[in-house]
Amino acid sequence: MASNSFGNLFKITTWGESHGKAIGVVIDGCPAGISLNDEMINLELERRIPGKTKYTSPRKETDQAEILSGIFEGKTTGAPISILIWNRDVQSSQYESVKHLYKPGHANYTYLNKYGCFDFRGGGRSSARETACRVAAGAVAKQILSDLGVDIVAYLSGAGSIQQDFLLSDVATYQEIRGKVQGSSIFCPHQETESKIQALIEETIEAKDSIGGLIEAVAFNVPSGWGDPIYEKLEANLAKAMLSIPASKGFEIGCGFDSASMRGSVHNDTYQVVDQTVELSSNKAGGTLGGISTGMPIVIRVPFKPTSSIAREQNTATLSGEAAKISLPVGSRHDPCVAIRAVPVVEAMFALVLVDAMLMNKSVIHVKT
Amino acid sequence: MASNSFGNLFKITTWGESHGKAIGVVIDGCPAGISLNDEMINLELERRIPGKTKYTSPRKETDQAEILSGIFEGKTTGAPISILIWNRDVQSSQYESVKHLYKPGHANYTYLNKYGCFDFRGGGRSSARETACRVAAGAVAKQILSDLGVDIVAYLSGAGSIQQDFLLSDVATYQEIRGKVQGSSIFCPHQETESKIQALIEETIEAKDSIGGLIEAVAFNVPSGWGDPIYEKLEANLAKAMLSIPASKGFEIGCGFDSASMRGSVHNDTYQVVDQTVELSSNKAGGTLGGISTGMPIVIRVPFKPTSSIAREQNTATLSGEAAKISLPVGSRHDPCVAIRAVPVVEAMFALVLVDAMLMNKSVIHVKT
Amino acid sequence: MASNSFGNLFKITTWGESHGKAIGVVIDGCPAGISLNDEMINLELERRIPGKTKYTSPRKETDQAEILSGIFEGKTTGAPISILIWNRDVQSSQYESVKHLYKPGHANYTYLNKYGCFDFRGGGRSSARETACRVAAGAVAKQILSDLGVDIVAYLSGAGSIQQDFLLSDVATYQEIRGKVQGSSIFCPHQETESKIQALIEETIEAKDSIGGLIEAVAFNVPSGWGDPIYEKLEANLAKAMLSIPASKGFEIGCGFDSASMRGSVHNDTYQVVDQTVELSSNKAGGTLGGISTGMPIVIRVPFKPTSSIAREQNTATLSGEAAKISLPVGSRHDPCVAIRAVPVVEAMFALVLVDAMLMNKSVIHVKT
Amino acid sequence: MASNSFGNLFKITTWGESHGKAIGVVIDGCPAGISLNDEMINLELERRIPGKTKYTSPRKETDQAEILSGIFEGKTTGAPISILIWNRDVQSSQYESVKHLYKPGHANYTYLNKYGCFDFRGGGRSSARETACRVAAGAVAKQILSDLGVDIVAYLSGAGSIQQDFLLSDVATYQEIRGKVQGSSIFCPHQETESKIQALIEETIEAKDSIGGLIEAVAFNVPSGWGDPIYEKLEANLAKAMLSIPASKGFEIGCGFDSASMRGSVHNDTYQVVDQTVELSSNKAGGTLGGISTGMPIVIRVPFKPTSSIAREQNTATLSGEAAKISLPVGSRHDPCVAIRAVPVVEAMFALVLVDAMLMNKSVIHVKT
Repeated sequence: MASNSFGNLFKITTWGESHGKAIGVVIDGCPAGISLNDEMINLELERRIPGKTKYTSPRKETDQAEILSGIFEGKTTGAPISILIWNRDVQSSQYESVKHLYKPGHANYTYLNKYGCFDFRGGGRSSARETACRVAAGAVAKQILSDLGVDIVAYLSGAGSIQQDFLLSDVATYQEIRGKVQGSSIFCPHQETESKIQALIEETIEAKDSIGGLIEAVAFNVPSGWGDPIYEKLEANLAKAMLSIPASKGFEIGCGFDSASMRGSVHNDTYQVVDQTVELSSNKAGGTLGGISTGMPIVIRVPFKPTSSIAREQNTATLSGEAAKISLPVGSRHDPCVAIRAVPVVEAMFALVLVDAMLMNKSVIHVKT
Repeated sequence: MASNSFGNLFKITTWGESHGKAIGVVIDGCPAGISLNDEMINLELERRIPGKTKYTSPRKETDQAEILSGIFEGKTTGAPISILIWNRDVQSSQYESVKHLYKPGHANYTYLNKYGCFDFRGGGRSSARETACRVAAGAVAKQILSDLGVDIVAYLSGAGSIQQDFLLSDVATYQEIRGKVQGSSIFCPHQETESKIQALIEETIEAKDSIGGLIEAVAFNVPSGWGDPIYEKLEANLAKAMLSIPASKGFEIGCGFDSASMRGSVHNDTYQVVDQTVELSSNKAGGTLGGISTGMPIVIRVPFKPTSSIAREQNTATLSGEAAKISLPVGSRHDPCVAIRAVPVVEAMFALVLVDAMLMNKSVIHVKT
Repeated sequence: MASNSFGNLFKITTWGESHGKAIGVVIDGCPAGISLNDEMINLELERRIPGKTKYTSPRKETDQAEILSGIFEGKTTGAPISILIWNRDVQSSQYESVKHLYKPGHANYTYLNKYGCFDFRGGGRSSARETACRVAAGAVAKQILSDLGVDIVAYLSGAGSIQQDFLLSDVATYQEIRGKVQGSSIFCPHQETESKIQALIEETIEAKDSIGGLIEAVAFNVPSGWGDPIYEKLEANLAKAMLSIPASKGFEIGCGFDSASMRGSVHNDTYQVVDQTVELSSNKAGGTLGGISTGMPIVIRVPFKPTSSIAREQNTATLSGEAAKISLPVGSRHDPCVAIRAVPVVEAMFALVLVDAMLMNKSVIHVKT
Repeated sequence: MASNSFGNLFKITTWGESHGKAIGVVIDGCPAGISLNDEMINLELERRIPGKTKYTSPRKETDQAEILSGIFEGKTTGAPISILIWNRDVQSSQYESVKHLYKPGHANYTYLNKYGCFDFRGGGRSSARETACRVAAGAVAKQILSDLGVDIVAYLSGAGSIQQDFLLSDVATYQEIRGKVQGSSIFCPHQETESKIQALIEETIEAKDSIGGLIEAVAFNVPSGWGDPIYEKLEANLAKAMLSIPASKGFEIGCGFDSASMRGSVHNDTYQVVDQTVELSSNKAGGTLGGISTGMPIVIRVPFKPTSSIAREQNTATLSGEAAKISLPVGSRHDPCVAIRAVPVVEAMFALVLVDAMLMNKSVIHVKT
């Protein structure tokens, strides 16, 4: 398939199955001279570790990443960075009881149709566990961006029937949002919304069901000029990045779907002169025009479907084509709202896209030297 | 920038500015043996020609495509197909009067920041005129798909305050939808919605304003197995394709953003056995699971912002940094609702993604021969 | 096949058959701000025009290139540059008489096996005519390099039994070599060798035969640091570039094949300190170490097989599988030594590889700004 | 740099430094259903292990490869295959004494110029140790080819002043050559040549020097139709593959450099009809025409320079720009003729190119289904 890489100049390749020996990522194209160590990766990984609260899966993953290459004397050398995470706390036996069944909402149906085989243990390659590798690579990307003053924050802005109704990027700084997100067990920076979602999740678990959720993410301080016209538009690569995350079902930038019902005189961001510099006077566009960053915050939203694995019984079929019922195997561990754990993944993918666009941007203007 | 290509195995590269000598596209990777001629391309191009009705720009483009290579005795040979469209009816002089101004909602601000120069005539490379090349290439892709029994149809499902409230793919066949879309001057297959949108557009023109719109598109008969896991998911490539279209602001598949507020027990498509074959019993997912097609119709939606060029005066600034006002130059011609003309473009990009996924799929299983 | 593009950041895509309507190239990724016009392209194209002397094919190609996009006010804009060359003086009828025959040394055998069809007129896509597009794109690349002080020159260093025995890059400057190459009708800068080859070619034509030839090329003034380790080594990309030229059969850099019979103490270039700068004291390596340029001249050699089309009768078979004889159709026009016309093509491909490596090199070191 | 991947549909990415914790390779795009286990990889790795005889470096590498992903129940699943090799027997301390010096023939000069830093331990990323990963990946590629009946064998055909003078592919079968190569401690299938080279190597070690060598490789049974026209010619990708191997200085196919001095009437392979099938009557071309395989054996040759690390003292300079002398650190271990250990690497790269071409070939012809 050759589909396990993302990025052009800053390229990651991930590998590994949920219940295999290990998972990992190779980062190719990282500039030389970036400070990096295991701890920086593990701090990011910790954010997506399940088992922290009752709102996420009780599966315990220690997820200690180990950098195996590409670092010398504490800095990147320009060589590929290989990061490995051993799979521990793997309990595959539970999957034996359902390995003959198609799982509603899961990929074993399509993998089997495509490849004629499927590593059924914990979802194999199609498991969200692969996203740990994205977070590890994202930690490196965020370090590069942070050195340039660019910061990204993602947060849960809604789940199920509870949807937040204001845009944080207009009223808060990066530091303020980051502080609130850190303080929330469900990555929700708006306290009232947070409480409601927490109550809804408890109710959902009780009902042996799951709920979807919405993630909003903002990149602050991206200079104007990143992103490329036509097919490598910044928003096009962001859309691809977000739709590559398991369970995501959409993408929007700026006013997004709402723009379909707006008028041009309302949607257009006009220009103003501030301190002799021309700036946009609003940010309806969400940070890009024609695929290239405007200098305003880049604001995106990504909806996640409800977790497919639910405790209640569902209709399905056996691999050999007979009608059947499926229930979660005893002892299997799942998130009631997969969007929560997707928050650091959205941040990571956002960072990967921006670093790639930044590196690409270095070749556009010809300067005689 | 090297950003003017789309696709991996079926790769297109477009070139040309709105008011340059010509525009064109090179298709690389087209299989040998496909029937193809100029007329097949021009039939598709005609669908996006402005000037047909009062609902679109009165600019008259004849847009006669000419195939310059890759065809021998009426069939493709496997060699690159070069399609050229000369630019006629080009009136650049009108742009002289605004060439010193940033245009709200347009890309001249970001292009100038990125490249230090801008071909201001008609928007240059950032003009939607580039999409004629996508439609030309899409005609080839649709021919390939049609030979395999796969059909795609896109339509306007809403504009401004008028939004359609049902999904056609559940109640109508491809032929039925296609027939209704062909019969509508605004590509809207739902007659009541169509009338309302037409009235709204007339009102909008009167108000010297523009409106956004929503496009829905469906691919029928895609076999299960197309698309690749992880970073080349079918929905990821569709999202990238759609966000690469000028003025598009989002993407969703299946229940999309609505899935964020749904419960797993409602969203999951369960399996059923029909004629000894296992099938999905519903299509909430919108045609893919884990990035791979399920065999159900692939249903996507793309919102388009209101046309940025509006007749009323707007605040802006000069390139040299002084506050200014901008109005549309007399004689300039713009669509009141850019989403209408984007309908054939969405269809074309949809087809390009599917053909690429189909070709990629040929290498996944190892058969000894 | 999707095999008609070359390069990563500076990417060309060529299209067109020998006897089709036109041929052309799209250059994607050219930095903005390069001075460019039709004349600069046509000057380069003129160098490979056959019909200039009796030593090359009498086919008359006017080969007027026309830039159709990517230029505004005399400079590149960063948008794709489309260059078109109409095919004139095309006489396809002569090929009718041999279209049912496999042609020894030609690609119609392999194209037919691969694609099941073949545009037999003048070799179709497999014709060396495609290389005109490479020369056109190379003209742009050479302009970029020239602005950076980097110059490339290629020349015929041998043909048939006549082989030159010294390396010009050690004893002559770029300007000196260039001057001599310009002055030679067969691109051979060494007068004695030139005369011998000319005599040999006349003899070869008389014998209704053809001869092979060797091209040497040197890039002067490439700074140390271009090229990437492991799989994108400068020499690896040069080798690919050269072996992509029709009729080329090999590649070497520095001492090349001779290095296989050398000793380390002789082959190693040691270091010396000149004006407080560390430099190589010799250039056995030919300008790279570990895939990255050393700052010394980059010296390569490429052998070309004898022209496959010869006037004398040869054994062959019909497409339907019967033994047959083939002779050149009356009126067909071929080079006695294809290597001569390959000289500007080698220069062009050399330039394409260097520009790509230069652009790639811009992203390797992280500088906080 | 993003330069650590090779291949398009069958893509490998290698990582790891000579004296880091580990090295490894990720194979992306391997078809599902291939039988594979650690042992198959280790059998290939063993062939390149130094320390086997006095003719190669006495460094002891156990090189036990471990497959970490992509296999389920003994077969590939289509998911990425991650192979890891821990670095053992690493003695970095010896490099401390020369870390302030440029090493003649090595890449530390160019790496430092490019990246501003260098992992000096054992050559870091520029070490030939990276080629173990190529051999591991090549083992998978060879398995795929073997299932299709395609076999590749490489051998040492010359070293220093001793050069073999006949082409084995014309007189021997794959099995015969393979048998003789297996039986030779220096991978030389021609006994007389083998003895002479062995004597020369002993003499070379005595002289504290090193020698270059020539490798010939043949692929048997490749069907006609693999490889793509223009820029992805089979020989172009083979050339790139071979020049990406450390210490290689050239490439040729078929008559290669000799073709420059041949006549067309001699070089052309004519066609003959055998059992109603049209075949080439000779193989001067070396197995391809126009970049596509002819069905004849593919025959290539690759020269390797003498090992750069030699025991005798050489002139060099310090990193800080002072003239200096360099000798091999006591205890450092190097091959007298690096070409010997390159034999399995040439085989591996050959296999990678062929598998990629085979997979690409699956998409060229359009069949309605």
